[in-house]
Amino acid sequence: MQNKGLLIVISGPSGAGKGTICKALLEKNKDIKISVSCTTRMPRDGEIDGVNYYFINKEKFAEMIEKNDFLEYATVYGNYYGTPRSYVEEEINKGNDIILEIDIQGALMVKERYPEGVFIFILPPSMEELKNRIIKRGSETEESFNKRFSAAYDEIKYMSKYDYAVVNDVVEDAVRKVESIIVAEKCRCNRMLKTGYFEQEGK
Amino acid sequence: MQNKGLLIVISGPSGAGKGTICKALLEKNKDIKISVSCTTRMPRDGEIDGVNYYFINKEKFAEMIEKNDFLEYATVYGNYYGTPRSYVEEEINKGNDIILEIDIQGALMVKERYPEGVFIFILPPSMEELKNRIIKRGSETEESFNKRFSAAYDEIKYMSKYDYAVVNDVVEDAVRKVESIIVAEKCRCNRMLKTGYFEQEGK
Repeated sequence: MQNKGLLIVISGPSGAGKGTICKALLEKNKDIKISVSCTTRMPRDGEIDGVNYYFINKEKFAEMIEKNDFLEYATVYGNYYGTPRSYVEEEINKGNDIILEIDIQGALMVKERYPEGVFIFILPPSMEELKNRIIKRGSETEESFNKRFSAAYDEIKYMSKYDYAVVNDVVEDAVRKVESIIVAEKCRCNRMLKTGYFEQEGK
Repeated sequence: MQNKGLLIVISGPSGAGKGTICKALLEKNKDIKISVSCTTRMPRDGEIDGVNYYFINKEKFAEMIEKNDFLEYATVYGNYYGTPRSYVEEEINKGNDIILEIDIQGALMVKERYPEGVFIFILPPSMEELKNRIIKRGSETEESFNKRFSAAYDEIKYMSKYDYAVVNDVVEDAVRKVESIIVAEKCRCNRMLKTGYFEQEGK
């Protein structure tokens, strides 16, 4: 029996650095794959169908929504983007681990549809640093600062819906933590009970 | 705020190699401490009170049972052995991780009394290997073999009460898995929410 791979969802507020962590993680771990999204937008120069995105038309996208073929989807500037369930499930059934880098709203959709995923929330180095970033982005009044900080803080509260939280202070440390989470998750008893180990017994 | 340490319970059937794993883990990680048990037996030559064991008399032991001062205890050949809750909690509150190497019955007692512990089940390399070990120990008849194998197999079924299972095929790999579990557990959202991180917000 082939052991199943993991769906690893890397998510968190914008500016936490989830992209940097995913990039470093994929570079270090050639056996981890990144989920390829579907989109209805036109391919840009150099983009390859099935590598950067699956480029599909709006009718096909609508049909896939209808058939519950997306783990999550959203519209950005009139174009649809979505994570196809079939690709993720095929890879996982082959025993491959899949990374999905996604915003909080998307991650919560995935969790509803694929609760056996591993949900990792990336946190900025500190709340102090988050404050600094908000100040740097230019909040002129105390009121405007409070509003922005409160919004970012509320977003961080979604952390409790996740399995893990990793503080992105030093990228290498954060990546090592994500790697440890992957190793540990494969040792979880509920996953171990589904592996080939217990098929050897021949009782 | 000082982040709390973890109570890491290493357990499993006899012969799985939990002692070997704990020894290697402690050698590699000088900051992890091993729980010091209380016992009513006499110290042997070279044994130091508070290092090898806390040597106490039966009256004191009974008093500690009465006061629910043990995470688990058992009698072996008329002597009492127990894991004192106070030592474990003191170290954990100081932020130190504590390893407890213990049989399945003891681990289940600890789980009742300290459910926030991390419970790791050590498995023999394979069910085949378990069979071989049982055969090597000398089961002359098929009936006797079946009985022994079935007993060992039943013991392994307790695995589902644990958080993690680690197969002890190569000791170094098993130790690395336990190390990853420790790192990952510290990233668990329920633990992260209790760390100093969110105290920086100053909202």
